[in-house]
Amino acid sequence: MRARVHITLKSGVLDPQGEAIRHALGALGFDGVERVRQGKVIELELADADPEAARARVREMCEKLLANTVIENYQIEIL
Amino acid sequence: MRARVHITLKSGVLDPQGEAIRHALGALGFDGVERVRQGKVIELELADADPEAARARVREMCEKLLANTVIENYQIEIL
Repeated sequence: MRARVHITLKSGVLDPQGEAIRHALGALGFDGVERVRQGKVIELELADADPEAARARVREMCEKLLANTVIENYQIEIL
Repeated sequence: MRARVHITLKSGVLDPQGEAIRHALGALGFDGVERVRQGKVIELELADADPEAARARVREMCEKLLANTVIENYQIEIL
Protein backbone atom coordinates (compact mmCIF):
# COMPACT_ATOMS: atom_id res chain seq x y z
CA MET A 1 0.00 0.00 0.00
CA ARG A 2 1.28 3.45 -0.86
CA ALA A 3 0.81 6.60 1.17
CA ARG A 4 1.71 10.17 0.31
CA VAL A 5 2.25 12.82 2.96
CA HIS A 6 2.22 16.53 2.16
CA ILE A 7 4.05 18.66 4.67
CA THR A 8 3.62 22.42 4.42
CA LEU A 9 4.56 25.32 6.66
CA LYS A 10 1.72 26.80 8.70
CA SER A 11 0.44 30.03 7.23
CA GLY A 12 2.07 32.43 9.70
CA VAL A 13 5.51 30.85 9.39
CA LEU A 14 8.16 32.59 7.28
CA ASP A 15 9.32 30.60 4.26
CA PRO A 16 12.75 31.85 3.13
CA GLN A 17 13.05 29.08 0.51
CA GLY A 18 9.74 30.09 -1.03
CA GLU A 19 10.82 33.73 -1.02
CA ALA A 20 14.09 32.81 -2.74
CA ILE A 21 12.15 30.99 -5.46
CA ARG A 22 9.83 33.99 -5.92
CA HIS A 23 12.82 36.30 -6.34
CA ALA A 24 14.53 33.96 -8.77
CA LEU A 25 11.35 33.67 -10.86
CA GLY A 26 11.10 37.47 -10.97
CA ALA A 27 14.74 37.70 -12.08
CA LEU A 28 14.00 35.24 -14.90
CA GLY A 29 11.18 37.46 -16.12
CA PHE A 30 8.21 35.60 -14.69
CA ASP A 31 6.11 38.43 -13.33
CA GLY A 32 2.80 38.18 -11.51
CA VAL A 33 4.06 35.53 -9.09
CA GLU A 34 2.53 36.82 -5.89
CA ARG A 35 3.51 34.19 -3.38
CA VAL A 36 5.53 31.00 -3.28
CA ARG A 37 5.53 28.42 -0.49
CA GLN A 38 7.71 25.36 -0.49
CA GLY A 39 6.84 22.15 1.24
CA LYS A 40 7.79 18.49 1.27
CA VAL A 41 6.13 15.40 -0.05
CA ILE A 42 7.03 11.99 1.34
CA GLU A 43 5.93 8.79 -0.39
CA LEU A 44 5.88 5.64 1.68
CA GLU A 45 5.51 2.05 0.56
CA LEU A 46 3.90 0.16 3.43
CA ALA A 47 3.31 -3.52 4.15
CA ASP A 48 -0.14 -2.76 5.66
CA ALA A 49 -3.13 -4.16 3.79
CA ASP A 50 -5.87 -2.17 5.52
CA PRO A 51 -6.11 1.49 4.36
CA GLU A 52 -7.50 2.72 7.67
CA ALA A 53 -4.75 1.02 9.71
CA ALA A 54 -2.18 2.42 7.27
CA ARG A 55 -3.58 5.94 7.65
CA ALA A 56 -3.45 5.69 11.45
CA ARG A 57 0.16 4.46 11.35
CA VAL A 58 1.23 7.20 8.93
CA ARG A 59 -0.44 9.78 11.19
CA GLU A 60 1.67 8.46 14.07
CA MET A 61 4.81 8.67 11.88
CA CYS A 62 3.98 12.29 11.09
CA GLU A 63 3.51 13.18 14.75
CA LYS A 64 6.70 11.42 15.83
CA LEU A 65 9.11 12.08 12.98
CA LEU A 66 7.99 13.35 9.60
CA ALA A 67 6.48 16.72 10.50
CA ASN A 68 7.37 19.38 13.00
CA THR A 69 3.83 20.05 14.17
CA VAL A 70 4.79 23.33 15.85
CA ILE A 71 5.37 24.99 12.47
CA GLU A 72 4.12 22.46 9.91
CA ASN A 73 0.81 20.99 8.77
CA TYR A 74 0.55 17.56 7.22
CA GLN A 75 -1.97 15.87 4.97
CA ILE A 76 -2.11 12.13 4.40
CA GLU A 77 -3.29 10.50 1.20
CA ILE A 78 -3.61 6.72 0.88
CA LEU A 79 -3.11 5.69 -2.77
CA MET B 1 -4.96 31.56 -9.35
CA ARG B 2 -3.06 28.91 -7.40
CA ALA B 3 -0.83 26.22 -8.81
CA ARG B 4 0.85 23.33 -7.06
CA VAL B 5 3.93 21.63 -8.45
CA HIS B 6 5.08 18.21 -7.25
CA ILE B 7 8.73 17.51 -7.85
CA THR B 8 9.94 13.96 -7.33
CA LEU B 9 13.16 12.16 -8.10
CA LYS B 10 13.06 9.91 -11.17
CA SER B 11 12.74 6.26 -10.26
CA GLY B 12 16.36 5.21 -10.89
CA VAL B 13 17.83 8.09 -8.87
CA LEU B 14 19.17 7.39 -5.38
CA ASP B 15 17.30 9.21 -2.61
CA PRO B 16 19.50 9.43 0.51
CA GLN B 17 16.97 11.61 2.35
CA GLY B 18 14.25 9.02 1.76
CA GLU B 19 16.61 6.28 2.94
CA ALA B 20 17.41 8.25 6.10
CA ILE B 21 13.69 8.59 6.84
CA ARG B 22 13.17 4.86 6.29
CA HIS B 23 15.98 4.05 8.74
CA ALA B 24 14.69 6.50 11.33
CA LEU B 25 11.16 5.06 11.08
CA GLY B 26 12.60 1.57 11.59
CA ALA B 27 14.53 2.77 14.64
CA LEU B 28 11.30 4.21 16.07
CA GLY B 29 9.63 0.80 15.76
CA PHE B 30 7.63 1.37 12.57
CA ASP B 31 8.23 -1.86 10.69
CA GLY B 32 6.94 -2.80 7.26
CA VAL B 33 8.05 0.47 5.67
CA GLU B 34 9.45 -0.85 2.43
CA ARG B 35 10.45 2.28 0.60
CA VAL B 36 10.47 6.02 1.22
CA ARG B 37 10.98 8.73 -1.37
CA GLN B 38 11.11 12.39 -0.55
CA GLY B 39 10.13 15.13 -2.96
CA LYS B 40 9.20 18.79 -2.96
CA VAL B 41 5.94 20.59 -3.38
CA ILE B 42 5.87 24.22 -4.46
CA GLU B 43 2.70 26.29 -4.23
CA LEU B 44 2.50 29.39 -6.40
CA GLU B 45 0.03 32.23 -6.27
CA LEU B 46 -0.23 33.65 -9.79
CA ALA B 47 -1.81 36.74 -11.26
CA ASP B 48 -2.94 34.80 -14.39
CA ALA B 49 -6.68 34.45 -14.86
CA ASP B 50 -6.66 31.73 -17.53
CA PRO B 51 -5.90 28.22 -16.20
CA GLU B 52 -4.37 27.02 -19.46
CA ALA B 53 -2.05 30.02 -19.72
CA ALA B 54 -1.11 29.55 -16.06
CA ARG B 55 -0.30 25.89 -16.65
CA ALA B 56 1.91 26.75 -19.63
CA ARG B 57 3.76 29.39 -17.63
CA VAL B 58 4.27 27.06 -14.66
CA ARG B 59 5.61 24.40 -17.05
CA GLU B 60 8.15 26.93 -18.28
CA MET B 61 9.08 27.81 -14.66
CA CYS B 62 9.65 24.10 -13.97
CA GLU B 63 11.86 23.66 -17.03
CA LYS B 64 13.89 26.79 -16.28
CA LEU B 65 14.15 26.83 -12.50
CA LEU B 66 11.96 24.70 -10.28
CA ALA B 67 12.92 21.19 -11.35
CA ASN B 68 16.19 19.61 -12.40
CA THR B 69 14.75 17.64 -15.31
CA VAL B 70 17.84 15.43 -15.56
CA ILE B 71 16.95 13.68 -12.30
CA GLU B 72 13.49 14.98 -11.37
CA ASN B 73 9.95 14.66 -12.65
CA TYR B 74 7.35 17.33 -12.09
CA GLN B 75 3.58 17.38 -12.04
CA ILE B 76 1.51 20.56 -12.26
CA GLU B 77 -1.90 21.00 -10.65
CA ILE B 78 -3.96 24.14 -11.16
CA LEU B 79 -6.21 24.73 -8.13
